[in-house]
Amino acid sequence: MSRHDLKALRVGVVGGTGYTGGELCRLLLGHPAVGTILPTARGAGSFATTHPNLLGSGLEFVTVDELTEQAGELDVVFFCTPSGQAMRAAGRFLELGAHVVDLSADFRFPSPDDYEAVYGKRHASPELLAEAVYGVTELNRERIRKSRLVANPGCYAITAILGLAPLLAHGFVDAGAPLSIHAVNGTSGAGVTPKKALMHAEVSNAMLAYSLEGHRHGPELETFFRALTGEPVEVDFNTSHGNFARGIHLQANLRLTREHGRDELLGLYHDFYGAGHQKEHFVLVVDLPKLGELNEKRYEIYPNLRGVVGSNFCHIGLDHDARRGITKIVAVTDNLIKGAAGSAIQNMNVALGLDETLGLRSYAL
Amino acid sequence: MSRHDLKALRVGVVGGTGYTGGELCRLLLGHPAVGTILPTARGAGSFATTHPNLLGSGLEFVTVDELTEQAGELDVVFFCTPSGQAMRAAGRFLELGAHVVDLSADFRFPSPDDYEAVYGKRHASPELLAEAVYGVTELNRERIRKSRLVANPGCYAITAILGLAPLLAHGFVDAGAPLSIHAVNGTSGAGVTPKKALMHAEVSNAMLAYSLEGHRHGPELETFFRALTGEPVEVDFNTSHGNFARGIHLQANLRLTREHGRDELLGLYHDFYGAGHQKEHFVLVVDLPKLGELNEKRYEIYPNLRGVVGSNFCHIGLDHDARRGITKIVAVTDNLIKGAAGSAIQNMNVALGLDETLGLRSYAL
Amino acid sequence: MSRHDLKALRVGVVGGTGYTGGELCRLLLGHPAVGTILPTARGAGSFATTHPNLLGSGLEFVTVDELTEQAGELDVVFFCTPSGQAMRAAGRFLELGAHVVDLSADFRFPSPDDYEAVYGKRHASPELLAEAVYGVTELNRERIRKSRLVANPGCYAITAILGLAPLLAHGFVDAGAPLSIHAVNGTSGAGVTPKKALMHAEVSNAMLAYSLEGHRHGPELETFFRALTGEPVEVDFNTSHGNFARGIHLQANLRLTREHGRDELLGLYHDFYGAGHQKEHFVLVVDLPKLGELNEKRYEIYPNLRGVVGSNFCHIGLDHDARRGITKIVAVTDNLIKGAAGSAIQNMNVALGLDETLGLRSYAL
Amino acid sequence: MSRHDLKALRVGVVGGTGYTGGELCRLLLGHPAVGTILPTARGAGSFATTHPNLLGSGLEFVTVDELTEQAGELDVVFFCTPSGQAMRAAGRFLELGAHVVDLSADFRFPSPDDYEAVYGKRHASPELLAEAVYGVTELNRERIRKSRLVANPGCYAITAILGLAPLLAHGFVDAGAPLSIHAVNGTSGAGVTPKKALMHAEVSNAMLAYSLEGHRHGPELETFFRALTGEPVEVDFNTSHGNFARGIHLQANLRLTREHGRDELLGLYHDFYGAGHQKEHFVLVVDLPKLGELNEKRYEIYPNLRGVVGSNFCHIGLDHDARRGITKIVAVTDNLIKGAAGSAIQNMNVALGLDETLGLRSYAL
Repeated sequence: MSRHDLKALRVGVVGGTGYTGGELCRLLLGHPAVGTILPTARGAGSFATTHPNLLGSGLEFVTVDELTEQAGELDVVFFCTPSGQAMRAAGRFLELGAHVVDLSADFRFPSPDDYEAVYGKRHASPELLAEAVYGVTELNRERIRKSRLVANPGCYAITAILGLAPLLAHGFVDAGAPLSIHAVNGTSGAGVTPKKALMHAEVSNAMLAYSLEGHRHGPELETFFRALTGEPVEVDFNTSHGNFARGIHLQANLRLTREHGRDELLGLYHDFYGAGHQKEHFVLVVDLPKLGELNEKRYEIYPNLRGVVGSNFCHIGLDHDARRGITKIVAVTDNLIKGAAGSAIQNMNVALGLDETLGLRSYAL
Repeated sequence: MSRHDLKALRVGVVGGTGYTGGELCRLLLGHPAVGTILPTARGAGSFATTHPNLLGSGLEFVTVDELTEQAGELDVVFFCTPSGQAMRAAGRFLELGAHVVDLSADFRFPSPDDYEAVYGKRHASPELLAEAVYGVTELNRERIRKSRLVANPGCYAITAILGLAPLLAHGFVDAGAPLSIHAVNGTSGAGVTPKKALMHAEVSNAMLAYSLEGHRHGPELETFFRALTGEPVEVDFNTSHGNFARGIHLQANLRLTREHGRDELLGLYHDFYGAGHQKEHFVLVVDLPKLGELNEKRYEIYPNLRGVVGSNFCHIGLDHDARRGITKIVAVTDNLIKGAAGSAIQNMNVALGLDETLGLRSYAL
Repeated sequence: MSRHDLKALRVGVVGGTGYTGGELCRLLLGHPAVGTILPTARGAGSFATTHPNLLGSGLEFVTVDELTEQAGELDVVFFCTPSGQAMRAAGRFLELGAHVVDLSADFRFPSPDDYEAVYGKRHASPELLAEAVYGVTELNRERIRKSRLVANPGCYAITAILGLAPLLAHGFVDAGAPLSIHAVNGTSGAGVTPKKALMHAEVSNAMLAYSLEGHRHGPELETFFRALTGEPVEVDFNTSHGNFARGIHLQANLRLTREHGRDELLGLYHDFYGAGHQKEHFVLVVDLPKLGELNEKRYEIYPNLRGVVGSNFCHIGLDHDARRGITKIVAVTDNLIKGAAGSAIQNMNVALGLDETLGLRSYAL
Repeated sequence: MSRHDLKALRVGVVGGTGYTGGELCRLLLGHPAVGTILPTARGAGSFATTHPNLLGSGLEFVTVDELTEQAGELDVVFFCTPSGQAMRAAGRFLELGAHVVDLSADFRFPSPDDYEAVYGKRHASPELLAEAVYGVTELNRERIRKSRLVANPGCYAITAILGLAPLLAHGFVDAGAPLSIHAVNGTSGAGVTPKKALMHAEVSNAMLAYSLEGHRHGPELETFFRALTGEPVEVDFNTSHGNFARGIHLQANLRLTREHGRDELLGLYHDFYGAGHQKEHFVLVVDLPKLGELNEKRYEIYPNLRGVVGSNFCHIGLDHDARRGITKIVAVTDNLIKGAAGSAIQNMNVALGLDETLGLRSYAL
């Protein structure tokens, strides 16, 4: 495909000033097929002031109007905007031939009513919902390959989906009670707008529980899980911010339809995602032995943010509380990469017919 | 009571080199009724090297033998030792008239078999179990008042108990499924022995899930909850270490026997623990309004470690996910104070007939 | 003195919403001679929302006007206000008989011109400067005892002064070149106003150097050092924020007028401040041996924030680079306690003739 | 050069279990010219347990003996070993035709006596010192291009050198007094061996000053600066660990031979290193304006670890304290990348005639 030649792609990033927009620019700078990156910003603001880590990259902000003027020459447009903007602006870019990957929630619900129920506003482009594909690449790859419009999943949602899909797809989960999911996110997940509750002196050494009455990624999960299993699935979704800037550490506690031991379940996950990078490059099963050399219990046998932050990987581990019959899944991702910008590029790669791992092969620090 | 005169009490701290032992010494130094503190250590080691925060206190380590020789003149002996030591040594101090507060697990189970099932060793002094009182001061005050031997609860356990007691005591909790409890502890909870998994460069920016197959405080909770409610209660207890040195941030998700709104439940907690310090000095209900001045959702309405670390307080808040019928309790404590040394002193105060808050009135930093 | 009876003192805290005001309230709540605390705030705002750690204390905000109306019945008024406010309002409280301790910079310079040179505004009450005493309690105790108006030192300044005073007072320092001082402060030192640069996701894992062209505590130090030594002393003062909420870790590198070894200098500091709490209760010299049991170099022989955060102590250690003839002083304090609210109470205690350590005896966590 | 074809290079990493060895493996995995990576370890130990971030990479440890057997087929051998090992083993690999990049201190001093003076042991291969090139790529590029043996600089040293070279090379620095350098390093810089002082609960929220009597990178700097300027240069070098896992935040305070303003000096640095990536790809000058849009002083105008951690970049900024005539340089690097593994690969690239930036182009997170 000629337009995918080395450094040939032209890409817009609507909403380039936040953490997700910045991370997308960083990853696109290292993408071998991307040649032009146009991030947008509203006000003046220099790029290097906003994203000091990208000093030297030569990137500069354009306005949305300037980007729209060039729409006809863009291959891909990413939206890193608050809910409600992409659904108004995506159509224009699609018409002019660009692929759109929306990192906001605007196209995550197939039904406009579901969107409105969760986000509290009428959907502006319900006609586009039908062609939007929910971008969990590992599970929707074929549909993404044919799509022009990808709805990138929420950072919590994709972590939960990758962690639970093997069990749900096999019908192993007892969905009689809500699936219990607890996720701790880095503070970058709360955005760049200064708030007292998110100042360093406030969060440092603490955890900040929020949205206990129900986080908006709960219904997003329920919608996807229903599509995956063909049955209604309730999710008890719990969120907080931890004392770290990046990463989602998620644990799901499930009752299975019948008992399976730890090794058996690890085997199931290996079959589903492949061992090493053989099948799914970005999803890795952590199956470290529970006992160390001296037959002592080991401390670090479950996945850990250290293994993924800075990368597009999702690490998954699990254990089983035999006494109470509860299976526990631990899944970790970088909320800004696999949870946002990395997945978005992975989806772009698939949609454009490129090698899915292009620009995304870095391991975690 | 003459022996409780200002600075008259003589106190031993068996196991004075760890974080709990150090914290106990720190609090005892500020206790108006305590005059002599004798912490024990095995090797040489200077006190100020081990506990640099207590530089200037004049405290020095003695050996256990030296402490035992003075047993007849001790008013109280605290055990901050690994499981298995207090059950061998406590008897001697009790015989000579000292009160014993054991911060290890040795006297937490009324039945020696239950102890053995959880801790994997035969109990050495089963005859003492009958008179040991489980030291959740707020719920066992009268029994502690008459006891010579207090089994101080585990740090996780006491946080969970204080958080759930009002609902359990009123029979509001549907115990048909295990109670789901997730708790994140500071790294001081893992002790002072150097381990790679707990080095700063490893834990910083991560969370360390552990004991997913079942933490030992689970059975401790089940034992107490059964005593409290008169019925079997299963607990699904999940633990991890967070990127902070001190504190337990605990969340319990429950189904109630019938629906209660947030305000109604906050009222129940206020009735149970009192408002302000009126009834229970150390348990405070956080009932901040969910909306701020501009009718915006507020970010910090649930309890937070900032409110309790450095103090003997437990802060409790809650919310209700009406859509899924799940009530969520958030309880936070300082794992080394309310979760260990502070409770131990509170129990000492009660057992000796002193004002319960003596030496424990500091607010969190 | 009858008015200093148990819980008899009435105290105002002008500017009670910031970190310093909150910390002052926290310490005053534990002060045995203080009975009434009146913190002021401008807007509505509940006290427990602003200072969740003081939940249950019963404190409530009043307006400055309400406080002023009660001025005649106040024993002490603390100002925790931005520069420029205390110099306008302090006079009124002094007239009505209250002592004033100003934690802002308004009364730190004896000369109104010096104040204007550093803070860029004309001094509003130059007539009060003559009676203001600079509140380094350890060095100005006798003057504070007789004063009505104490200018509490800056947090950086007091840490530097306590760290260097023994050498300066003995004329050991070669003042031919500026004294080189580097200090890292917690983020609470930057105040509560939300700023992007101080958000958790920004500061976490980094350091934030600032005011390299000259911090305002530099001239404050030069003024005091000149008064102490009788000679001009230049200070090269360097500041940054570290990845912690509280505490100042300060290092000064000096050339002495002649060589002194580590032990000799430690002896000098012991003589100056006393060993243990014998002479100066709140200043402790850390003189741990440099080699451990196995003759290995020890890692933690210099003072460390862990030893002081949460307390009114200043820990001081030192070393000597013999090859280059440079003496290095390390001094650590809690920026909100010894660096602000604790010193302010210490000064109040002295000015009112109370035991200087009242309400301040807690050791660091 | 045929052997440098895509994925053709075979590389050994002696000492693959520490943080530096792991980081080297991580970067080599992303290097387009490297096909085989052989990290060594002493004991059993699985690679994924030691470096969970490299799960899925397929790397496995070999023993040093196994590596030595393959020496004839290796293109490059990196030493990530404690001081004293590379000087014994490097010769063998050189003889068999491999390039050697030593990340330890063994070949950093041209004179064996200087090595012995600093590291306390006799040099085992003094004959190799003559051909070893000190690997600050930016300043020694031509010599590295012709060398077989590169002595990779210490992490502190390279940060200081890049920060000061423009001034020193131009003879702007008044070397009459020791150059004052203060550097804060992440805890990964202290290695993986568990030590109590470096446990999370100890370092979190503190700083750990060490080696105040003189750090070993001081003489390393003095040796290089003397070579650079042709004159003796004394360095007052101060080190500590901060509450972060990675990165060096370094500040140097200098007196110049005559006064230069901030802008003038920034211009000098731009000339020396180039703007953007034009001249030196990995050294970037941060020249943000000191005032923001509303003419307010800006908080974040100096380099910050956020800008470099995870990358091979060094960011440099500066300011001038005109009142005291002191110029201040701030330089930041990732201690494990530009300070170790990244520089080592950069040197490998140069020595093998590859594009210097291969495998190193990632921006900071």
